[in-house]
Amino acid sequence: MTPYTPPTQDQLLAIRVNAGIDELAQSERFAAAEPDLVEAIVEGVGQFAAGEFAPLNRIGDLEGAKLENGVVRLPDGFAEAYAAYVEQGWNAIASPVEFGGQGLPFTLACNVLENLGSANMAFNLLPMLSVGAIEALEHHGSDAQKAKYLPDLVSGKWSGTMNLTEPQAGSDVGALRATATPIEQGEHAGKYLIQGQKIYITWGEHELAENIVHLVLARLPDAPEGTRGISLFLVPKYHVKDDGSLGPKNDLRCVSLEHKLGINASPTCVMSYGDNGECVGELVGEPNRGLMAMFTMMNNARINVGNQGVQIGERATQQALAYARDRVQSARAGSPDKSPVAIIEHPDVRRMLLRMKALTEGARALLYYCAGQVDRGTLGNLAAGQRAEVLVPLVKAWGTDVGVEVSGIGVQVHGGMGFIEETGAAQHWRDSKIAPIYEGTNGIQAADLVTRKLGLEQGGVVEALIADIIRDAGEEPALRALAEDCRAIATWMASEASLDDRLAGSVPFCTMLAVAVAGWQLAKQAQAIAAGAAPTLAATKPVTTRFFLDRIVPEASGLKTSATAGAGLLYSLSAEALAS
Amino acid sequence: MTPYTPPTQDQLLAIRVNAGIDELAQSERFAAAEPDLVEAIVEGVGQFAAGEFAPLNRIGDLEGAKLENGVVRLPDGFAEAYAAYVEQGWNAIASPVEFGGQGLPFTLACNVLENLGSANMAFNLLPMLSVGAIEALEHHGSDAQKAKYLPDLVSGKWSGTMNLTEPQAGSDVGALRATATPIEQGEHAGKYLIQGQKIYITWGEHELAENIVHLVLARLPDAPEGTRGISLFLVPKYHVKDDGSLGPKNDLRCVSLEHKLGINASPTCVMSYGDNGECVGELVGEPNRGLMAMFTMMNNARINVGNQGVQIGERATQQALAYARDRVQSARAGSPDKSPVAIIEHPDVRRMLLRMKALTEGARALLYYCAGQVDRGTLGNLAAGQRAEVLVPLVKAWGTDVGVEVSGIGVQVHGGMGFIEETGAAQHWRDSKIAPIYEGTNGIQAADLVTRKLGLEQGGVVEALIADIIRDAGEEPALRALAEDCRAIATWMASEASLDDRLAGSVPFCTMLAVAVAGWQLAKQAQAIAAGAAPTLAATKPVTTRFFLDRIVPEASGLKTSATAGAGLLYSLSAEALAS
Repeated sequence: MTPYTPPTQDQLLAIRVNAGIDELAQSERFAAAEPDLVEAIVEGVGQFAAGEFAPLNRIGDLEGAKLENGVVRLPDGFAEAYAAYVEQGWNAIASPVEFGGQGLPFTLACNVLENLGSANMAFNLLPMLSVGAIEALEHHGSDAQKAKYLPDLVSGKWSGTMNLTEPQAGSDVGALRATATPIEQGEHAGKYLIQGQKIYITWGEHELAENIVHLVLARLPDAPEGTRGISLFLVPKYHVKDDGSLGPKNDLRCVSLEHKLGINASPTCVMSYGDNGECVGELVGEPNRGLMAMFTMMNNARINVGNQGVQIGERATQQALAYARDRVQSARAGSPDKSPVAIIEHPDVRRMLLRMKALTEGARALLYYCAGQVDRGTLGNLAAGQRAEVLVPLVKAWGTDVGVEVSGIGVQVHGGMGFIEETGAAQHWRDSKIAPIYEGTNGIQAADLVTRKLGLEQGGVVEALIADIIRDAGEEPALRALAEDCRAIATWMASEASLDDRLAGSVPFCTMLAVAVAGWQLAKQAQAIAAGAAPTLAATKPVTTRFFLDRIVPEASGLKTSATAGAGLLYSLSAEALAS
Repeated sequence: MTPYTPPTQDQLLAIRVNAGIDELAQSERFAAAEPDLVEAIVEGVGQFAAGEFAPLNRIGDLEGAKLENGVVRLPDGFAEAYAAYVEQGWNAIASPVEFGGQGLPFTLACNVLENLGSANMAFNLLPMLSVGAIEALEHHGSDAQKAKYLPDLVSGKWSGTMNLTEPQAGSDVGALRATATPIEQGEHAGKYLIQGQKIYITWGEHELAENIVHLVLARLPDAPEGTRGISLFLVPKYHVKDDGSLGPKNDLRCVSLEHKLGINASPTCVMSYGDNGECVGELVGEPNRGLMAMFTMMNNARINVGNQGVQIGERATQQALAYARDRVQSARAGSPDKSPVAIIEHPDVRRMLLRMKALTEGARALLYYCAGQVDRGTLGNLAAGQRAEVLVPLVKAWGTDVGVEVSGIGVQVHGGMGFIEETGAAQHWRDSKIAPIYEGTNGIQAADLVTRKLGLEQGGVVEALIADIIRDAGEEPALRALAEDCRAIATWMASEASLDDRLAGSVPFCTMLAVAVAGWQLAKQAQAIAAGAAPTLAATKPVTTRFFLDRIVPEASGLKTSATAGAGLLYSLSAEALAS
């Protein structure tokens, strides 16, 4: 596996052009995000990730997380790297200042995750899940809970988890059965006894942090069925005393680790709460409002997963480029010189490499555009906040699709070597495949787009986005055509199409709209570069942008008939007939 | 992992409609291929594969092939299953009658491989490689070699391998360095001392067969450089005495096994020949004509790899359908009934499943259409033989792309469970990924299409194929449009486009033409069913065909700009700039 070289200049370009960091820094809240600090962060975390996280990526895959006598062990080096991460303060970038955070824009937190995840996707899930726990407590915890738990979560001394899924309750969170019973008296009076089993708990158990703050969805006695009867509980691995020191271990344990296709260094735990009837948790927020609390953090969590597509795309592209420059095989077709050349000189290998680069840069442009809109929403800009709502499923679904496609091409560029695990290309592809699944499958993202998001302001939010693209498309006929396709589909979905029709076309439509936004944002980068921004990218960016606009954008238009074909054909067979 | 259920009816339909088996049976050579025998074979091998090979697929992945003291060990059950395979005569389907084969059409050999490979892709590589060795000897061996080696290869008592690749010689076979030195005197006078290391040797060492016949490419002393200086040698694991009994072991060994992304039960060997200077081989065919001998069998080998895409697509589709019918999650969106339903009832899951099924059936239709053309070529039909030449890269490249896509969707249908190895969905996806790489990468297939194949009869062979599709497209406007796109691209490639331009557009063009042929052949199946063929498919086939023609065909048209964009942009950056 080749080393990770942070794409600092392309990240800075996206942070400036697509997220508009300078504009964000004009607000009082984000005034600290001045150019020097932004550069220092992007360069600093890139170097940290390359130096500390990247060297552990292969061993993390090979050895993986192991459960030994209830303790989750990571390969050598993980504990030290995590300690360095905490020590250098990277966990605290976007967290509230009053709890020790730096209060910087989400955009910059995205960049921290991008670098860490390109370096080591499995390891990066530890900080990523902690960020989610911090957000949930920040928005829904009591003042006492915040004071007690946030400082050590913000610093990274403690980590956090999310516990939603149970065997029968995956995409259908409302089907969960874990219970919470009020404790009437004794030391824990006012708290709850938690009981139940949760699966797919990322970094649910480990020894890298001193404590783990589990956020667990469970049902109170007599709670309504379904999603309206779910409450959120804070369940620490070790009880935390009033003075902040750690007490005895809570009644919870990791029962087993999943044997997975990828991200092997990330322990995916089956967690059991209350085996001995003594698992104590605190209610976070209102009873029966747990899912709403989860929703607060879901947008950012989904963006963070979309970010993983960019991460793995970047890493896979770097590896493929290095191999293609190094591997010598065959002369150029038709060349009078019969000497073999590096395979990067062959036309189809170039096509593959440019495709990898263009898709990755496009996904990055979309990611930071979305992050910037989130930050504007935080500053009170309603329209930007609503636009972010529309962009989130695009970033999550298309971003992760890009991760799988790009890392798959990466394997192909390596030829036979790509299929050999030692090369490292296959790991990226295996790792990439979780991202379209978790944090709401890509099908669920697309459903979110064509139901909730398309309906925002009676379709006005999506229409405004499309109108912006068309306004700027100017001399880009393919981009304009794709945006107009999207408009036609959105109009059809809002008028004639049944709910089933919309859902039947949701995934192709989601891809089309994502490609349109990414192409638009890439074109903005190219314009900025033409105007003198980022001189080191002046040669490559126009090429990747053209590749995207001239090849990837027209391909997306090819999905139009799929987006509007409706659900009739899908239901013309019974389930039994379909499976026969 | 769900059991394998042979899609016997769909296979028979493809064998009848796309391969035209009844017409083949009218020839003297294939007169035995009467309907009863064809049915018996397709049903019989399907049941054999399901009963003997499929149960070993998961354990083969988990335990894999292991090298212990120079001996390759397979998990329990493999030896017995292979013995049963030989015993039942499945290895001999299409081999020459005079050496114990049944002399049946290649079409039926495809079906044997299809069933075995769906059941167990890694295991099936053992018969698949043997078939290649048989073909090479059949066409290029001396009478003495045929008499000595073919009967036991045809029965499957012995297996065969292909040894082309060396570390520096992958796609560029001409760069190989293994040597063959004439033996002047002694027991082996007239034979050759073989020396060199070969990599990626599939089933290069194992104990399932009594002997292994290695076909090895090497250079004679003073051979010209490059591909014109390569000769083919037969190098047995055990020397074969004149009476056919086995002598001492030859000087060759398996040095190591690769640690791969998939097909773990298939030992991928690094082979060393002549460590002690005593490795003896026989020349097959003319000196320096080894690559031509390899080319003889390459067409069928490439079809067999494309077949693997169909195999893995079928198996992944079956598994996803079974899971989607079983897994209950969430109510139907918009339904007044709030009870959760099997996920197959959700629109986007249906879309995924139908896509899997349509792509797999389309690839199968293309596969058997190609096989039927090969068989007609064997019967002396020049036009059919030339058409097969054009179809081969389509089957190999697009077929294997379908395998990766379909098995990837299969993982997605499973949600979180898909990422857990125990489920088995991930294995299909991992296994699928070798097929676009070996036997000539898909890039090389596409290059073959736009250089050699497009030039056959000054473009007439490709044009005749496209004209046939357009003639039959009748009421299918999308299919007609795609075929016309293909014609326009072919015309552009033959006239204005430079060699680089053609190669730059080769992969998109290859996909487009493959989808057009597959759609055409699926439509033929649907017509046959409308006329009363295969009543058990009467419900599903029209649906999968419509899905293919209405959604997958228009998507392929979206590749047109990529196919004709030319190479200019790809070379507008130096390799160094591209990698910066």
